[in-house]
Amino acid sequence: MKPWSIPLRGKLDELEIDSSALKGNHLGDPHVRPLMVYRPPAYERDPAQRFPTIYLIQGLTGQVDMWKNRSSFRPNVIELVDLLFSNEQEDVPPCLVVMVDAWTSLGGSQYVDSPGTGKYMTYLCDDVVSFVDAKYRTKASRDHRALTGKSSGGYGAMVVPMMRPDVFGAMATHAGDAMFDLCYARSFGDTVRALRDNYGGSFEKFWADFRSRPALSKSSDHNLLNDYCMAACYSADADGTVRMPFDTATGERIPEIWARWLALDPVYMARKPDYAKALKSMRAIYIDAGKRDEYFLDIGAEAFRRELDKLSIKDYFFELFDATHAAIEYRYPKAMKYLAERIA
Amino acid sequence: MKPWSIPLRGKLDELEIDSSALKGNHLGDPHVRPLMVYRPPAYERDPAQRFPTIYLIQGLTGQVDMWKNRSSFRPNVIELVDLLFSNEQEDVPPCLVVMVDAWTSLGGSQYVDSPGTGKYMTYLCDDVVSFVDAKYRTKASRDHRALTGKSSGGYGAMVVPMMRPDVFGAMATHAGDAMFDLCYARSFGDTVRALRDNYGGSFEKFWADFRSRPALSKSSDHNLLNDYCMAACYSADADGTVRMPFDTATGERIPEIWARWLALDPVYMARKPDYAKALKSMRAIYIDAGKRDEYFLDIGAEAFRRELDKLSIKDYFFELFDATHAAIEYRYPKAMKYLAERIA
Amino acid sequence: MKPWSIPLRGKLDELEIDSSALKGNHLGDPHVRPLMVYRPPAYERDPAQRFPTIYLIQGLTGQVDMWKNRSSFRPNVIELVDLLFSNEQEDVPPCLVVMVDAWTSLGGSQYVDSPGTGKYMTYLCDDVVSFVDAKYRTKASRDHRALTGKSSGGYGAMVVPMMRPDVFGAMATHAGDAMFDLCYARSFGDTVRALRDNYGGSFEKFWADFRSRPALSKSSDHNLLNDYCMAACYSADADGTVRMPFDTATGERIPEIWARWLALDPVYMARKPDYAKALKSMRAIYIDAGKRDEYFLDIGAEAFRRELDKLSIKDYFFELFDATHAAIEYRYPKAMKYLAERIA
Amino acid sequence: MKPWSIPLRGKLDELEIDSSALKGNHLGDPHVRPLMVYRPPAYERDPAQRFPTIYLIQGLTGQVDMWKNRSSFRPNVIELVDLLFSNEQEDVPPCLVVMVDAWTSLGGSQYVDSPGTGKYMTYLCDDVVSFVDAKYRTKASRDHRALTGKSSGGYGAMVVPMMRPDVFGAMATHAGDAMFDLCYARSFGDTVRALRDNYGGSFEKFWADFRSRPALSKSSDHNLLNDYCMAACYSADADGTVRMPFDTATGERIPEIWARWLALDPVYMARKPDYAKALKSMRAIYIDAGKRDEYFLDIGAEAFRRELDKLSIKDYFFELFDATHAAIEYRYPKAMKYLAERIA
Repeated sequence: MKPWSIPLRGKLDELEIDSSALKGNHLGDPHVRPLMVYRPPAYERDPAQRFPTIYLIQGLTGQVDMWKNRSSFRPNVIELVDLLFSNEQEDVPPCLVVMVDAWTSLGGSQYVDSPGTGKYMTYLCDDVVSFVDAKYRTKASRDHRALTGKSSGGYGAMVVPMMRPDVFGAMATHAGDAMFDLCYARSFGDTVRALRDNYGGSFEKFWADFRSRPALSKSSDHNLLNDYCMAACYSADADGTVRMPFDTATGERIPEIWARWLALDPVYMARKPDYAKALKSMRAIYIDAGKRDEYFLDIGAEAFRRELDKLSIKDYFFELFDATHAAIEYRYPKAMKYLAERIA
Repeated sequence: MKPWSIPLRGKLDELEIDSSALKGNHLGDPHVRPLMVYRPPAYERDPAQRFPTIYLIQGLTGQVDMWKNRSSFRPNVIELVDLLFSNEQEDVPPCLVVMVDAWTSLGGSQYVDSPGTGKYMTYLCDDVVSFVDAKYRTKASRDHRALTGKSSGGYGAMVVPMMRPDVFGAMATHAGDAMFDLCYARSFGDTVRALRDNYGGSFEKFWADFRSRPALSKSSDHNLLNDYCMAACYSADADGTVRMPFDTATGERIPEIWARWLALDPVYMARKPDYAKALKSMRAIYIDAGKRDEYFLDIGAEAFRRELDKLSIKDYFFELFDATHAAIEYRYPKAMKYLAERIA
Repeated sequence: MKPWSIPLRGKLDELEIDSSALKGNHLGDPHVRPLMVYRPPAYERDPAQRFPTIYLIQGLTGQVDMWKNRSSFRPNVIELVDLLFSNEQEDVPPCLVVMVDAWTSLGGSQYVDSPGTGKYMTYLCDDVVSFVDAKYRTKASRDHRALTGKSSGGYGAMVVPMMRPDVFGAMATHAGDAMFDLCYARSFGDTVRALRDNYGGSFEKFWADFRSRPALSKSSDHNLLNDYCMAACYSADADGTVRMPFDTATGERIPEIWARWLALDPVYMARKPDYAKALKSMRAIYIDAGKRDEYFLDIGAEAFRRELDKLSIKDYFFELFDATHAAIEYRYPKAMKYLAERIA
Repeated sequence: MKPWSIPLRGKLDELEIDSSALKGNHLGDPHVRPLMVYRPPAYERDPAQRFPTIYLIQGLTGQVDMWKNRSSFRPNVIELVDLLFSNEQEDVPPCLVVMVDAWTSLGGSQYVDSPGTGKYMTYLCDDVVSFVDAKYRTKASRDHRALTGKSSGGYGAMVVPMMRPDVFGAMATHAGDAMFDLCYARSFGDTVRALRDNYGGSFEKFWADFRSRPALSKSSDHNLLNDYCMAACYSADADGTVRMPFDTATGERIPEIWARWLALDPVYMARKPDYAKALKSMRAIYIDAGKRDEYFLDIGAEAFRRELDKLSIKDYFFELFDATHAAIEYRYPKAMKYLAERIA
């Protein structure tokens, strides 16, 4: 019943997965996770066929049911996916789309294995992929699997295929975190100030306050959560202790911790032989970002693109478009079509 | 499965209603509308009992399935409602909660009857209420019905009970539109400028552009849509022609059109004998707003409150709290509890 | 010695004038005022000649020595004036430029006679002009006198020649206050809120605080000062009592007070026969404003221009250029050249 | 004649100095510079006495006559200085105040010697100080000389006494540049974007555009000028070539260039034995900044203060106050009094 919701022509399965990788994670977050799988109409129509799979991952603070969130006057993401893969005219190769949850109680996981959060890359690459391949008629190989997402999801879509090219053979990033000096360091001053003015310099006091009231209701919440969560993902010690890359009283950058962050910056990663080789093996690379992105991820995108050029990778999609970081979910189908045509 | 979604203890019915009031509406918008009804656990437990009803209405550009939208780290509104009415400890009188759709292709309806949009007050007060009373075990009288909402929904929750006290005997407004000189007129300059710079001075060109691309992707979209939609609700001629309350080239206020707007401003309405009488008949009046509301609806709330004082209405709830206009859905349960205790 | 200061080729006289019009003004502000007169090189060169005069007036909170304020990398206004009138190549008819002070302890005077501030129009038109004509070799008639300024100075440059066409026969306005519904009413909500949150609703408390500390050091200072000062200029009672055009607790517009403001809005003034006649008698009308003016004075400029069109005034200059309200002093020479050519 | 200007009780000498240090500077900027010297009333009264000297230096884009700039309702800086040193009641030890120009055609010099700009530290410490000591009855030794300023002037007031403790024995910094990772790096992303969107990636094109129109009239001007000028001060090669500390296309930090910047960050400098020794030798150290400083110089101030603590320096003044970076000239007298009492 338009315009409120659009009946799906495909199917959406809402499942749960019990992840062994997430068992005993440092934060005590659940190891049973929701999982949503979209099946295109062709999946029912053609019961002998196997299908390529696109894994869709979320930005920081994403919870998997947010894919159903509606913005005014717009289809939601699941409807966008359905419109793409059920449109016979457009002749897009039909894909399964797997929506993965990687929320943590700090906001997210960046889809990496970290002692500060949990083994989210392993969970994604081993637990989730196996689960999906076992349950659905997939083309169960890296050449027929793509990873895509926006913001922290775009980050994951860049780094996971570099680290696990055995699992993913294609990637699409919308405004993915990259060039950390621009996208992350910018908020460190705000964080120092917010800790000083509101929390006696202590992240513990911040988290206690944050958990005691409607989340994200103070203007400093986002920066504090973001900086801490990134540190938990990028620079936690083996025992889970989170190391901030700056002195929380003075903002002074701590080079050895910052180096641990940069080691996970897609731009710098692309310069390492193994990751470069992985990039060269991709069947599809799609990159876009809004030119007015609040986190300068358009510049991060350009920096990542230049690494592809240096590696003589010729066949990729790149576009900077007129937008901010927000409300760009209408770009997903563009990337999915690009991926579908290359992993079919 | 926390934290992604919380299984409801009550039930949510998703229905459709075919509204005779909306048939042939000027915009050609559907007369069949979605409707969601929340039944508390007590409804099943006690099949002989009848229940009071709270009608929940949305802000501008709201579509009814947005009540399911999740914000990071927070329960969504339906979960909030369920938590309130299924919490045995708190001893809140159980209510049915009816979520009504009043979207239009201009963004909304303000819940009034207008030749520019449609008969949305009639739709709400006659069609929807009858439908609900026929289908559910309600306490089917105005003394057991409340109307509540935020922003344009808060506006509706003020004006509809004033105009139809036969239907609603209680109201709650969160940051409801009021004191139009502050909340609406502020954007007229931006609108004049956006029309000049981007649309050759023409709203028609704006709407053509707006409908050709992802909605609300330009920074001027919100103001243009808001100003036009309000004019469609408050100052459309009998044939549906929308009259703007200002000259779109110079911003000059047009007094006779602006007077039509003010006639529908809750603050001014409260001064008319019939509406004053209706207000005095309310069993519950709840008013709140964020002190940093971008539309100055905290001041509108204060202005409305002062009208209650002038009418010697003593028993109302009033609070200005520290927040902007956004992300204040956590206030709904507070109002619903207040209403429930007074319409039980 | 460039780039720090540019030696003048003309002369700047710094004088004082004892104004009878300002004696006993309501605010107790001084009746002895500074006055600066720029003489072009031609004035000395040609002792028999008489010169046209351009009166330059300031924006709100202007004090006359601010004309010497330097902005980085830019000539100051006096240097700009000197560059214009000492440039033999450009062949601009030489003029005297008179810089008038009309500061008040509320910020300014809007160059009108008001019981709330003082008789600043009389001071300008009678006291200052007589003083200048007596002291300098001027062409002492309205056809050879122009008035120009920016912001509130632009306002004065529109309304004073309308009210006193016997004195001024030409005008130039840069971003002058006009279309008050856009330029002034926009801040009323902020003012109500600032009074509520910081001053117990009282302007008296605001002024006491304002005078106790570095002026304009709080973010709400500008709006509070502006709203109050405009009321002192436009809607003070005969005994000097300042009437605000809105209820300071609710923001409700008070129509009879607002009408007093609109009676002094240049756009509405232009519709009155006497003022229209004055406009038609002008030898030069110059209008400009920045398209991104924070007070929407570009739209006010357009509205004023349309009134000229309605009066069949054909010969005027009009331009909207790419700028905000700030730092547009480089536009002064453009207007002065235009005026000089027409009042020579 | 209050409130427009306050007659000085002391004297202001406006001089020129021909600097040998600035001869042949890379930018071709003048070597003859303006200089203003304020003499307190005591200087005339007591012709046998010698006086301590406070050198006052400016922020980026400062030109020395800007000290005369008036802000609404406020004394200008020269009047503030005069009020301080002519107030018999307050018993502030009288000082000469020397206002030094260190403007360059890139905006400023940071008061350091650089092949990219000129030998501005030498100019200040040798040329200007000698000139003043020769011309005035000064107490001509480092123990009786202080350096003070705001923003880039505050930076100079920290680093010059560290590098030239033979010349200056006291310092005061208002919101001085420090902790470069916070105060400078924050704009690099904006700069990359502005170069990309408006200047084809080229600073040369920026400067050509900048010099062709009213300076600082585009919103990106400030960041571009600031980033480039700092590089000219901190990381120019011996031949004057300016090295940016980031890749102008990708924002990637260039560690070896950035290290050259950090070597001139007051916080890091304080850790070097020579500079630490210089700091310990100071007779007065005054530090303040606004808590809402747009460049996070409050955090830089705190970082610098902590270095003093590490050096067991006990006797310093430190205050963070409620303000932004702008319009804090009213703090100058507070610092000058503190200095005067310690260098008398």
